Amino acid sequence: MAPVPITFLSDYGLGDDFVGVCHAVIARIAPEARVIDLTHGLDRHDVRTAGLVLRRALPYCAPGVHLAVVDPGVGGDRRAIALRTTEEERLLVGPDNGVLSLAAQRFGGIAEVVDIGRSPHRLEPVSATFHGRDLFAPVAAHLAAGAPLGDAGDPIDADEIVRLDMPLAAIDDSGALLAHAVSFDRFGNITLDVEHAELTDLGFRLGHTVEINDREGVYATTFADVPAGALLLYEDAYRTLSLAVNRGSARDLLDLRRDDDVRIAPH
Amino acid sequence: MAPVPITFLSDYGLGDDFVGVCHAVIARIAPEARVIDLTHGLDRHDVRTAGLVLRRALPYCAPGVHLAVVDPGVGGDRRAIALRTTEEERLLVGPDNGVLSLAAQRFGGIAEVVDIGRSPHRLEPVSATFHGRDLFAPVAAHLAAGAPLGDAGDPIDADEIVRLDMPLAAIDDSGALLAHAVSFDRFGNITLDVEHAELTDLGFRLGHTVEINDREGVYATTFADVPAGALLLYEDAYRTLSLAVNRGSARDLLDLRRDDDVRIAPH
Amino acid sequence: MAPVPITFLSDYGLGDDFVGVCHAVIARIAPEARVIDLTHGLDRHDVRTAGLVLRRALPYCAPGVHLAVVDPGVGGDRRAIALRTTEEERLLVGPDNGVLSLAAQRFGGIAEVVDIGRSPHRLEPVSATFHGRDLFAPVAAHLAAGAPLGDAGDPIDADEIVRLDMPLAAIDDSGALLAHAVSFDRFGNITLDVEHAELTDLGFRLGHTVEINDREGVYATTFADVPAGALLLYEDAYRTLSLAVNRGSARDLLDLRRDDDVRIAPH
Repeated sequence: MAPVPITFLSDYGLGDDFVGVCHAVIARIAPEARVIDLTHGLDRHDVRTAGLVLRRALPYCAPGVHLAVVDPGVGGDRRAIALRTTEEERLLVGPDNGVLSLAAQRFGGIAEVVDIGRSPHRLEPVSATFHGRDLFAPVAAHLAAGAPLGDAGDPIDADEIVRLDMPLAAIDDSGALLAHAVSFDRFGNITLDVEHAELTDLGFRLGHTVEINDREGVYATTFADVPAGALLLYEDAYRTLSLAVNRGSARDLLDLRRDDDVRIAPH
Repeated sequence: MAPVPITFLSDYGLGDDFVGVCHAVIARIAPEARVIDLTHGLDRHDVRTAGLVLRRALPYCAPGVHLAVVDPGVGGDRRAIALRTTEEERLLVGPDNGVLSLAAQRFGGIAEVVDIGRSPHRLEPVSATFHGRDLFAPVAAHLAAGAPLGDAGDPIDADEIVRLDMPLAAIDDSGALLAHAVSFDRFGNITLDVEHAELTDLGFRLGHTVEINDREGVYATTFADVPAGALLLYEDAYRTLSLAVNRGSARDLLDLRRDDDVRIAPH
Repeated sequence: MAPVPITFLSDYGLGDDFVGVCHAVIARIAPEARVIDLTHGLDRHDVRTAGLVLRRALPYCAPGVHLAVVDPGVGGDRRAIALRTTEEERLLVGPDNGVLSLAAQRFGGIAEVVDIGRSPHRLEPVSATFHGRDLFAPVAAHLAAGAPLGDAGDPIDADEIVRLDMPLAAIDDSGALLAHAVSFDRFGNITLDVEHAELTDLGFRLGHTVEINDREGVYATTFADVPAGALLLYEDAYRTLSLAVNRGSARDLLDLRRDDDVRIAPH
């Protein structure tokens, strides 16, 4: 049977040989497995953004093994895990710091999870600082090659797995949307905690003005719908509600930090 | 039949998951297709440089599907196209903004072209901002897997396709070469609009001095042929006439912008 | 027979199409060969760091063809070579400037080496500046596809091959370790010229204080073992003795340049 594909996400960057050596380790164990680099350019140690990127990218990836290594606690006492999701039986491998939790949730939660800290698949001696090479990549490769999840480590309870603490959008008494600035991209665009499925109930009308934290913006389809410098509210390519300034930075304009409140009301 | 290889060029950068998600989409549709990243580090929205890079790179690539996504007009009314070249039957996929036109020209022009804006291969719902994922990657993958070009969209007339407006080098009355600064690299080296085939007639002699916009330079084989700080005229690795300063920047020395005139005469 | 895998290391960066075009050239010659990018983000022309990275990465890579192109002398009279190591029969391809020498040494030295400057595998016309595309990639691809090393070029004597000049750690009369700052990473961590096998004899004890060039540090397992700002001596992920400052830069603290002396004594 052909091995399933592996996706690989990390904050290692491409300036050193970290990512390349993980690829080499995978290729030794599962020479036929295709490895797709989702990105290695995430901000260092930003577990939350990595978890969000993994959640939004996975529906576009064939079910297989999904390796995510953003691991500020490497060498400490955080657990290393591999899990199988309830829907589509995707196999997720990474540190137990929440980086896998949002993606697991999107696929119906965790059906089975094992602690791989002392996995028989690990490369000995396991270094104190490079578990991507010594632990996560070898486990991902063996799983892609068909090894059962139960053989990769010791079973643990799904309830013990670390979950990311995410804010929750709501509607206030006046009918305004109370959302949060969940993540930022390099252009200063802001992702909110409201997805397409929830949007239809909010009553925003395309092309109409909305009040965003006491500023005026337009609910639009794309940047070009508003003049340069204008604030817009829009659904991004992953169908998540977002804020942007055409040729500018919404982050700067609204002076927002992660998880800050964003109140949005029809004008 | 094995799928043909896909080359992939964009200005997405590797800091986000854009390129990775396009790879994932391709792998779902054509799991056996090999994808070669030509580069994703082009300056954002620089359609012209992307077109030049594609033209010079393709002769080194096996005939197959060539995906190029530099797309400042995404979500607007620019067309999305897939075309077959007259020579070698290469399949080019991208926005109809000229990015494919120079490469198509190099392979004898366009034998067949279709509008893929409403391609049956597209991923629904097509987002307003990420046609790489929703339109171009899926079409490229289906073509690589063997789907006929005619099934990818609606036929259009090759004459309607946007072509890049390029300057044209010439010889003036005094016998001097009137060329143009077509593109710049990060070191300040300048590519001119003169290729190897045209060079033999110009009468420059290796090791001899030439006048370049009233400065003196040397017609040389490589940087090391002139002292540090000296200007040289040379044939680059793609056999195109170029200007450089050994350990310096020709762009700064000559104070040139895109398409500026460069007059070159034997001294 | 399936082609052996190729690893590829360079200082080309990913901003241009250099790496992509080398991949394309390899794929044309050996369409089935898997190519693993070790990294292309090395400092430009830093032959020594490239040689060290290749040496430490190769034990994690399946035996195959190992292409390394860091080539400040391209177009000059440095030789281009391909060699077979005594142990594991690995095939190394690159310029003869020492970049391959440390890796070759780790695998028992050179069993056979050929000058590939006029290799029958080369792409004509060979450019003056892009031997990665015209010489090294084609030779690597043909070797991966099974062509004998002897057919790739003209045999030369292994003793003629350029070797990197590396410092050598020693023990002084007082029993202190006299090591050297061999390389630095972007965080200011310093790799010394002492490997795990040599470490056991040195008598450092984990958790104890050591004197490092008249400063105090701790011999520790990982960064988190010392307070922020504190200097530590530790074995890195490649089992090489290294210096770091927790959340700081050992390079700055100790004001060291490449090959500078580092004297380390138990306190």
